Amino acid sequence: MVEEITSMEEDFAKWYTDIVKKAELLDYSSVKGCMVIKPYGYAVWENIKSLLDSRFKATGHENVYMPMFIPESLLQKEKDHVEGFAPEVAWVTHGGSEPLSERLCVRPTSETLFCEHYANVIQSYRDLPKLYNQWCSVVRWEKTTRPFLRSREFLWQEGHTAHACAQEAIAETEKMLDVYADFCEDVLCMPVIKGKKTESDKFAGAVATYAIEAMMHDGKALQAGTSHYFGDGFARAFDIKFSDKNNELKYVHQTSWGVTTRLIGAIIMSHGDDNGLVLPPDVAPVQIVIIPVAAHKEGVAEKAAELKARLESRFRVKLDVSDNSPGWKFAEYEMKGVPIRLEIGPRDIADSRCVLVRRDTGEKSFVPLDRLEAEAERLLGELAESIYEKALANLKNRTYSCASVDEIIKTLCEKGDGFIKAMWCGDEACEDEVKEKTGVSSRCIPFEQEDLCDKCVCCGKPAKHMLYWGKAY
Amino acid sequence: MVEEITSMEEDFAKWYTDIVKKAELLDYSSVKGCMVIKPYGYAVWENIKSLLDSRFKATGHENVYMPMFIPESLLQKEKDHVEGFAPEVAWVTHGGSEPLSERLCVRPTSETLFCEHYANVIQSYRDLPKLYNQWCSVVRWEKTTRPFLRSREFLWQEGHTAHACAQEAIAETEKMLDVYADFCEDVLCMPVIKGKKTESDKFAGAVATYAIEAMMHDGKALQAGTSHYFGDGFARAFDIKFSDKNNELKYVHQTSWGVTTRLIGAIIMSHGDDNGLVLPPDVAPVQIVIIPVAAHKEGVAEKAAELKARLESRFRVKLDVSDNSPGWKFAEYEMKGVPIRLEIGPRDIADSRCVLVRRDTGEKSFVPLDRLEAEAERLLGELAESIYEKALANLKNRTYSCASVDEIIKTLCEKGDGFIKAMWCGDEACEDEVKEKTGVSSRCIPFEQEDLCDKCVCCGKPAKHMLYWGKAY
Repeated sequence: MVEEITSMEEDFAKWYTDIVKKAELLDYSSVKGCMVIKPYGYAVWENIKSLLDSRFKATGHENVYMPMFIPESLLQKEKDHVEGFAPEVAWVTHGGSEPLSERLCVRPTSETLFCEHYANVIQSYRDLPKLYNQWCSVVRWEKTTRPFLRSREFLWQEGHTAHACAQEAIAETEKMLDVYADFCEDVLCMPVIKGKKTESDKFAGAVATYAIEAMMHDGKALQAGTSHYFGDGFARAFDIKFSDKNNELKYVHQTSWGVTTRLIGAIIMSHGDDNGLVLPPDVAPVQIVIIPVAAHKEGVAEKAAELKARLESRFRVKLDVSDNSPGWKFAEYEMKGVPIRLEIGPRDIADSRCVLVRRDTGEKSFVPLDRLEAEAERLLGELAESIYEKALANLKNRTYSCASVDEIIKTLCEKGDGFIKAMWCGDEACEDEVKEKTGVSSRCIPFEQEDLCDKCVCCGKPAKHMLYWGKAY
Repeated sequence: MVEEITSMEEDFAKWYTDIVKKAELLDYSSVKGCMVIKPYGYAVWENIKSLLDSRFKATGHENVYMPMFIPESLLQKEKDHVEGFAPEVAWVTHGGSEPLSERLCVRPTSETLFCEHYANVIQSYRDLPKLYNQWCSVVRWEKTTRPFLRSREFLWQEGHTAHACAQEAIAETEKMLDVYADFCEDVLCMPVIKGKKTESDKFAGAVATYAIEAMMHDGKALQAGTSHYFGDGFARAFDIKFSDKNNELKYVHQTSWGVTTRLIGAIIMSHGDDNGLVLPPDVAPVQIVIIPVAAHKEGVAEKAAELKARLESRFRVKLDVSDNSPGWKFAEYEMKGVPIRLEIGPRDIADSRCVLVRRDTGEKSFVPLDRLEAEAERLLGELAESIYEKALANLKNRTYSCASVDEIIKTLCEKGDGFIKAMWCGDEACEDEVKEKTGVSSRCIPFEQEDLCDKCVCCGKPAKHMLYWGKAY
């Protein structure tokens, strides 16, 4: 298991799949494009889930569960939505040996189901807002798949909310984008760009789609979360009306927002290195691994067990007492991205100290046992800060301003992949032309606009927005 | 919403569905047999899930996630298993507009997927035991459905374990049945009978199926959880072998075990009354609801908010400051089964006290505010004990010993539904005959055997076991 992995430089894609396999995050199954999430990978997801869920609850959201099937007629109710999703859904046609009277698709997303439910339960302004969220799996019949990043089935959460007015729904869309951005930065130590998707790139059925975009080690962008404002489009299609305070019937305004198990892919490609995974402490299934050195010597095993008992009230701790050599164990937990390794041997015990080793830097420190908890806490905090800073530096170093299509081509050729900042007239034709000529597509119109120049990078006409462009996962 | 519900006596089935709807646990969807679990119902499930999950983790189990689809050829690998499940699975035949080269069923249970994975990851005795669990939804194409009790899609957990020998696997099967039984008794306040299913009633592919059976208000039995021992049957079908310490190749021995959202149905029918739901405190989304009385009077709203702030560090608390009348609120939270209602009004404030009302008995007590936490804690404990005792009395009162088929018929006719204890020769023909003549089927061979007499209730030949019989949900 602790064979060497392909280096990032040599073959980034292979480095990625090596980590996925060798850190025991995921396994393939005989169902093409569907994954087995192994205990270690699932534990990362459980931590992501629990920390996000408490943020959703703190912002007033409630969890529900909707059916996994959508009748074909229900999917068809909103025109843009069905056009976007029908080509990539899995269809159930038989129950047992009987053909169904109507095909059911396995949910690719659940707007239609939430809308149907909202039409039933919303009558008055007193019923608003509805702030629902669901944790579940969804299915999209992708042609090409990659572990965590693009699979036919994936785990996610989908928030679906209904509001009395546009203003409140827009505020919700923005609030949840902020929740995602803060989560990525504070918990996953991954800086993101917040922005709006262009018209051509928005969710099927949305008035506006907002996204957070992160920068991976290899210069490719990764969309880490999206938040959509629907206006009253779905409400009109599904007839979701409420009587307001003046007893007038009005359509609700809606939003939806989601993040998926691809966040695990983002963690790998933001923080990993040639020794394997590097996990942000808050989502690491094991924060400190204790490895006894010369464990056969008197008192070592006992001391290691004592330290475990001490630490586990504050940290997620594992003590490895297996027969493998310390060196083998060091490599194994490096591969698995455990933030801190604690080594304890006879000499350490004699000196009332232990060794703490940071996963990201490999830095060793001798720590007096009476200061162990405080030092471990400090190191975890420093590691989180360091990997964030490193990821931020990567994002900054790989962001280039360009004033022409030729400059984009030249930059990509000389510097490699990254974010290209460039001005844009707002015309879809220019967006397409840039993509065709350079290979990078629009990522988002960032909230933090810069006035690079006043002309569109493509047609030279007056620019409306600065856009981020890039190749994306 | 707080209209009256049908009384239990009048129409038990309607009483049940009234509670499901009016306590806002569940809503129907346009997908026949699939349910929308509403926030209040889902919060009950989240509590069940979190308390069970920690018991699984404490017994060494790890969570994973397997694909939701099973290729037809994989489902067919174990003969008994496919025979049991194929008639009731939903088949996916198309991905987008393309027909699939092989049909996929939506998992009705995941033995086949776990087996395929275990065949990949188990090589040596060092890889054993594998103690995996999964929380997910499964689909079984039932003809008739009832909210929570029998639906085409339901939420559950499924444990799947692999062991080096039969003895260890059997011990696991028994251990997990105990975990379920203890959970039902300690957390859901619901006594259960532990036993073994007869041959005709065991899980498709199992060597032995164990179950816990509970008694509902109406005298019907409810199977609340099952735990299966597979021997090496699946291991042979899926070729799951490991090399033991002597380097000999052996098949693993396996188990699986599960409980579902039907536990919510069991809670309703174990503890509910004609005023609605009664929730066991440990799974109640709201343990204490605070209702200000004469809330417009000076200081009442503030005091209510202060009590909420005080209580919520120890309890799940809701303060209802809506415009509805106190009487309306009382009825609403009775319907929702909130264990304790706290009333606070001007006179209470003047006397530094409040009123606590128990949901199960309606008993009121005046509680000095300086003893509030301790009294609330005590009342919650007493309520849990009382509803357990009440359910236990129901189980005992509705359990009858019978020595002949005629006596079974007479007992059911005179006393109504319940558990019938009777001796059995072990012959399937007798099991079938009793069912046909009396309408009750075998529930389980209880671990606690009694020697009622030495003859089979049906054929009069020597008896092998005492069996529990009953009508079941």
